[in-house]
Amino acid sequence: MSKFFSEKFNKLTPYVPGEQPKERQYIKLNTNESPYPPSKKAVEYAEKQSKMVMLYSDPDQKALTEAVAKELGVGADCVIMTNGSDEVLNFAFMAYCDDSHPAVFADITYGFYKVFASVNNVPYKTIPLREDFSIDIEEYLNEQGTIFIANPNAPTGLTIPLSDIRRLLEKNPNRMVIIDEAYVDFGGESAVSLVGEYDNLLVTQTFSKSRSMAGARLGMGIANPQVIRDLNTLKYSLNPYNVNRMTAGAGIGAIEDRDYFVKNVNEIIKTREQTAKELESLGFSMTLSKANFLFIKHDKIGGEELYLKLKEKGVLVRHFNDPKIVEYNRVTVGSPTQMQAFISAVKEILEELL
Amino acid sequence: MSKFFSEKFNKLTPYVPGEQPKERQYIKLNTNESPYPPSKKAVEYAEKQSKMVMLYSDPDQKALTEAVAKELGVGADCVIMTNGSDEVLNFAFMAYCDDSHPAVFADITYGFYKVFASVNNVPYKTIPLREDFSIDIEEYLNEQGTIFIANPNAPTGLTIPLSDIRRLLEKNPNRMVIIDEAYVDFGGESAVSLVGEYDNLLVTQTFSKSRSMAGARLGMGIANPQVIRDLNTLKYSLNPYNVNRMTAGAGIGAIEDRDYFVKNVNEIIKTREQTAKELESLGFSMTLSKANFLFIKHDKIGGEELYLKLKEKGVLVRHFNDPKIVEYNRVTVGSPTQMQAFISAVKEILEELL
Repeated sequence: MSKFFSEKFNKLTPYVPGEQPKERQYIKLNTNESPYPPSKKAVEYAEKQSKMVMLYSDPDQKALTEAVAKELGVGADCVIMTNGSDEVLNFAFMAYCDDSHPAVFADITYGFYKVFASVNNVPYKTIPLREDFSIDIEEYLNEQGTIFIANPNAPTGLTIPLSDIRRLLEKNPNRMVIIDEAYVDFGGESAVSLVGEYDNLLVTQTFSKSRSMAGARLGMGIANPQVIRDLNTLKYSLNPYNVNRMTAGAGIGAIEDRDYFVKNVNEIIKTREQTAKELESLGFSMTLSKANFLFIKHDKIGGEELYLKLKEKGVLVRHFNDPKIVEYNRVTVGSPTQMQAFISAVKEILEELL
Repeated sequence: MSKFFSEKFNKLTPYVPGEQPKERQYIKLNTNESPYPPSKKAVEYAEKQSKMVMLYSDPDQKALTEAVAKELGVGADCVIMTNGSDEVLNFAFMAYCDDSHPAVFADITYGFYKVFASVNNVPYKTIPLREDFSIDIEEYLNEQGTIFIANPNAPTGLTIPLSDIRRLLEKNPNRMVIIDEAYVDFGGESAVSLVGEYDNLLVTQTFSKSRSMAGARLGMGIANPQVIRDLNTLKYSLNPYNVNRMTAGAGIGAIEDRDYFVKNVNEIIKTREQTAKELESLGFSMTLSKANFLFIKHDKIGGEELYLKLKEKGVLVRHFNDPKIVEYNRVTVGSPTQMQAFISAVKEILEELL
């Protein structure tokens, strides 16, 4: 830190993304990327736009917003497009959290929520997951703060039903609820269908996972038009051209190429179920993940040890140091070939233990 | 606004970007875009990356940062890459402004500075430009706040010499000075050469103008490594993958294609000087712009009237409502063909007045 850095960030601890090692070629199962390339249409539209970047992108992102809105079955004034879903999540912390409205989220969830609270200087409260890592919605009903729930949750992959979200929205209509659906396409139930009914709901989604666009940075918020206006006020006060032309083009292409999206998602779900079965037969226990990752542990080997041994063998998975989940690893569902390599490495490690 | 929007943004007035009309094809001289397409190498690298977007971009942007650092003659730890220079400017307002360190900038300058102050809830003070729109550095020397100077300034295009910036940096080494060099390549003198000498200096630049990449969104901050660490702390607390793969690729390509960059900049300078001469012969007065725009007024026609009449004729320029500059228009220097069309439209308008 320089001596000039404002004291308000004294206690700020930045988010630590999954490793992106450059020294060696790993089988990367640590950042929940898709094993499948982006849609050809996405690439084609991005390439077309790359020749046009001397001109600013449309700050309203009219064409992209309309394509996304149509796909989701909502009005175009119910959608905002952002530089990844991290950006719209930060807008939500800015817009809806302050000293009178602390952020409320699970103790085990997307690790960025507490960083967003911290960087925005707003208080937050965490609510423990149950022993089985499930969310007890009863614990949230009487909270007065702004609630953030990842559904499916990360790194557990567990979902809550829409009926729980309805209860939350109805119990206190003066409180904002943000449902982070980064992983919803792999088996969750989207709350987008509730946006027309509840003015205190904001749903966030991303093109990073199910649409193979993590490196293009495209996310979105879906809510009633007033909430979208709030978020646009922030966007136009921070970075009006937040989404570049190439990414916007790729987004439109990815939406148009629905068949490819569905095929990839189904492929990943199938691979997830097969991998889960194999891991169970090797003695692993795991949560019932509806995301593009598995959250696994084994009685015979510690979480960190497994992570390190896999890394030695050229397979990267994600290990977290939080004591509650320290025995677990989060393993991205890659291609069948990647998962066979992962399973082989796991088998070797388990055999070496005997 | 929704009823949920935090009261802290009650008085927030977002930035208004230049019009991007969709209903009609205009000769767009209102947002200081380059009339020349991006470098072929930039397009080539962007296209290559567009096929790889299923993988996250490098949060450290190692390759891009090194290319930029080499081009600027500084160490790679002296550079941060951002989603346009608006993002690094906002980081600077976050990092270096608070109740004890108000932002200080000219009354007439990039309109976003006061929005950044407002969205970050920090106080700001404006210092009037002289009558001739020049900056009187004496007026800044004793300011205790964090100083933001656009050099060349917008929308005037006027520059201050490095000797003035040196005086500012030396007068109070406990105060941060941010020099916004969005337009520096068109004739300004860059303060990047001072970064090694002063730890209270941050220079910001962009690929939007001189490198024809406004729609790709790529900016950067150049400063001593401690300041860069501050800014990275914020980046990693807000959006670690802020720069996408395609834009990063395009940035490397644009840096490698130095000849093309120099050729375009020289072309734009030549067109600026020619256009200035023609406008003067038509009775316009103007500032001595060292940017890719001219800041012009005419005794016989009001600023807004000229703007509206040009728009009627299919030429968009930028008009600002601030009383001090209401008689002026900012005109982007486009291609020779665009400028001929602009001059023809101006001639018609002046003739109609007689």
